[in-house]
Amino acid sequence: MTIKRTAGGVCAPKGFTAAGMHCGVRKNRDKKDIAMIFSDVECTAAAVYTQNKVYGAPITVTRQNIADGTARAVICNSGNANTSNADGVEKAEAMCRMTAEALGIKSSDVIVASTGVIGLRLDLEPIEYGIKELSKNLSKDGGNDAANAIMTTDTKVKEISFEFTLGGKTAKIGAIAKGSGMIHPNMATMLSFITTDAAISAEMLHKALKEVVDVTYNMISVDGDTSTNDMVAVMASGLCGNAPITSEGEDYEAFKAALGAVGSYMAPMIAGDGEGATRLITCSVTGAPDEKTAKTVARGVIASSLVKAMFFGADANWGRLLCAMGYCGAEFDLSRVGISMSSAAGSIKGVEGGFCIPFSEEDAKKILLESEITVDISMNQGEASATAWGCDLTYDYVKINGDYRS
Amino acid sequence: MTIKRTAGGVCAPKGFTAAGMHCGVRKNRDKKDIAMIFSDVECTAAAVYTQNKVYGAPITVTRQNIADGTARAVICNSGNANTSNADGVEKAEAMCRMTAEALGIKSSDVIVASTGVIGLRLDLEPIEYGIKELSKNLSKDGGNDAANAIMTTDTKVKEISFEFTLGGKTAKIGAIAKGSGMIHPNMATMLSFITTDAAISAEMLHKALKEVVDVTYNMISVDGDTSTNDMVAVMASGLCGNAPITSEGEDYEAFKAALGAVGSYMAPMIAGDGEGATRLITCSVTGAPDEKTAKTVARGVIASSLVKAMFFGADANWGRLLCAMGYCGAEFDLSRVGISMSSAAGSIKGVEGGFCIPFSEEDAKKILLESEITVDISMNQGEASATAWGCDLTYDYVKINGDYRS
Repeated sequence: MTIKRTAGGVCAPKGFTAAGMHCGVRKNRDKKDIAMIFSDVECTAAAVYTQNKVYGAPITVTRQNIADGTARAVICNSGNANTSNADGVEKAEAMCRMTAEALGIKSSDVIVASTGVIGLRLDLEPIEYGIKELSKNLSKDGGNDAANAIMTTDTKVKEISFEFTLGGKTAKIGAIAKGSGMIHPNMATMLSFITTDAAISAEMLHKALKEVVDVTYNMISVDGDTSTNDMVAVMASGLCGNAPITSEGEDYEAFKAALGAVGSYMAPMIAGDGEGATRLITCSVTGAPDEKTAKTVARGVIASSLVKAMFFGADANWGRLLCAMGYCGAEFDLSRVGISMSSAAGSIKGVEGGFCIPFSEEDAKKILLESEITVDISMNQGEASATAWGCDLTYDYVKINGDYRS
Repeated sequence: MTIKRTAGGVCAPKGFTAAGMHCGVRKNRDKKDIAMIFSDVECTAAAVYTQNKVYGAPITVTRQNIADGTARAVICNSGNANTSNADGVEKAEAMCRMTAEALGIKSSDVIVASTGVIGLRLDLEPIEYGIKELSKNLSKDGGNDAANAIMTTDTKVKEISFEFTLGGKTAKIGAIAKGSGMIHPNMATMLSFITTDAAISAEMLHKALKEVVDVTYNMISVDGDTSTNDMVAVMASGLCGNAPITSEGEDYEAFKAALGAVGSYMAPMIAGDGEGATRLITCSVTGAPDEKTAKTVARGVIASSLVKAMFFGADANWGRLLCAMGYCGAEFDLSRVGISMSSAAGSIKGVEGGFCIPFSEEDAKKILLESEITVDISMNQGEASATAWGCDLTYDYVKINGDYRS
């Protein structure tokens, strides 16, 4: 089974077009602020959402719309989260209605999302203008514009597409995403829209999405905060012609692998582009007694402010890694734990049998000055493993978040 | 019942002397790095410790020594945490032995503590020298030197003493503390040593300490990290002459109130002196359905990196306060929640009925530019309340923690 990169992003799979533009939600006319993705045919659809108890109005509305397992379009604005507003749900529903009218589809087939400032009234006028324009400009080349339009403090456009074989047919899967601040396990300020031309039941699509999100999108932490608005949604057009996937088996595994490739691409991409980040930190835990422990340790280390600040300073402070393991909530036998750090500049071990051991500060500095660093935690007490992604904590994170609204 | 400030710190209560000096654990000769507190008589004693699974060797040894409910001395160095070292317990025991020899007491009556870098071998030579010198220089004026000697990245000396009436006698209670980075609910990098001349059984002393710590020292968060080494320990000499407290009742309540005054003084003092902090943030939650919810919400708001960065920028981003409430893990009815912020410059409301409401940006800025700010969360769904203390997240936090070891 091969999964290979292909061009086109969310428009790579058959049946999908997209567009992105500036409509006026943001003041800065150079920043696109509204995106649309459209499918020529009815799709099966699934989504997973933030677990924050305070969630945005778009989450409420999308959850309702997707309950029947179908969708045909995504409408998403950046610059305003439409959250904690008394008229939020009403506005999110209006966005769906406008999109449905412009595209000649059902309002309940629209996935609506918003990202940006919380608690700021959303003005529908620019959105209405945007939706009309977008619907006229949908194209196979529009994926990149859509990817641009959903960005907030992101510095890099996040899109990907893969080609894979499914039941003898060539299938495609594509995605766009936005991340940056507030990226924490359980979704945080993250949006990702995934398209595929595979044929798969809504039920199996949801199952695959949940399994993949659990080990990719949900294993990211930028600052420990989880956001109110975020979702990963997938639409499957079925146009590649495979026999529809309705149960587990070879085809399901092939599809899940392709979806997993999307998650595995996006997760470090989002983490490494965390607000103000200068380094992508990957924490790989092996030899854990069970998967839950592996995940808890990997995320705990990645989410520690002290660990994150240490990577900004390229300071090999092994004690902080141990300390973060200690308070992450996992139960384990410390006396078996070994820790190494590695990067393009080499690898160095600093913890053995649960204790710090002598190491070369010079080598450590060289390794930690690289832009991508891996912390390898060998727990030596089982077979389970997990990977989490994060970034360093920098002056710029503080600066960006000290005055986000202006 | 009156509790009034008095002079003397940990030496205010009858029977206690203290000293602090530079012995050489740190390279900088201008920074004191070892402290001793001594009681003329055997004390009842109690302590609460970090809940980090990775804890320092001094924690192991103090826990053993205090198991019998008695102690007579504290020995504490800064600059090296003696944690995650293979020979850590051996060294911590040696510190107790040296202290016991110098003071002519039992080794098992010594409370030992260390704070500083984790995973760095502790050199006993300067410690041995320090212990000998300290034991010769103990005095009623030594509390401030001891308070200085336990500081790490703290910028302010933390000591306090109160006088109160207990069973018709005048009793005193005093304390020193160190805090700064890694101050989070459940102890974090925080040390506090409390002395009193009240007579109280070890059992009641432990009970009072636990109750007070739960609503004061454990309601602080600087960066969400919890440390490996930290403890709040109390020694009671009984020399004020009250009838020993051996059960709940009026005297117990009087003592607990005095201990509570110590905690209520130290908690905001430690939070406001968090690493790089420019503002003390108090989160006061009222009207919660139960105390657990009140505490979870108060701590959740205080611990959010986005909330902390917002206060650094004096940016009234009400949505972030709601967002932090949403993911803190508490269950509540959002539609009843109101939020105000206040400081010496006034008070402003930004959330009502769970939604953001219009507010004056100008007034908000004035209020948030003050150095002490209170977030008032009225949950309007019960009678429980809680208070938590934290600080803003600043460039200097990142700077301090980017290269802590050098």
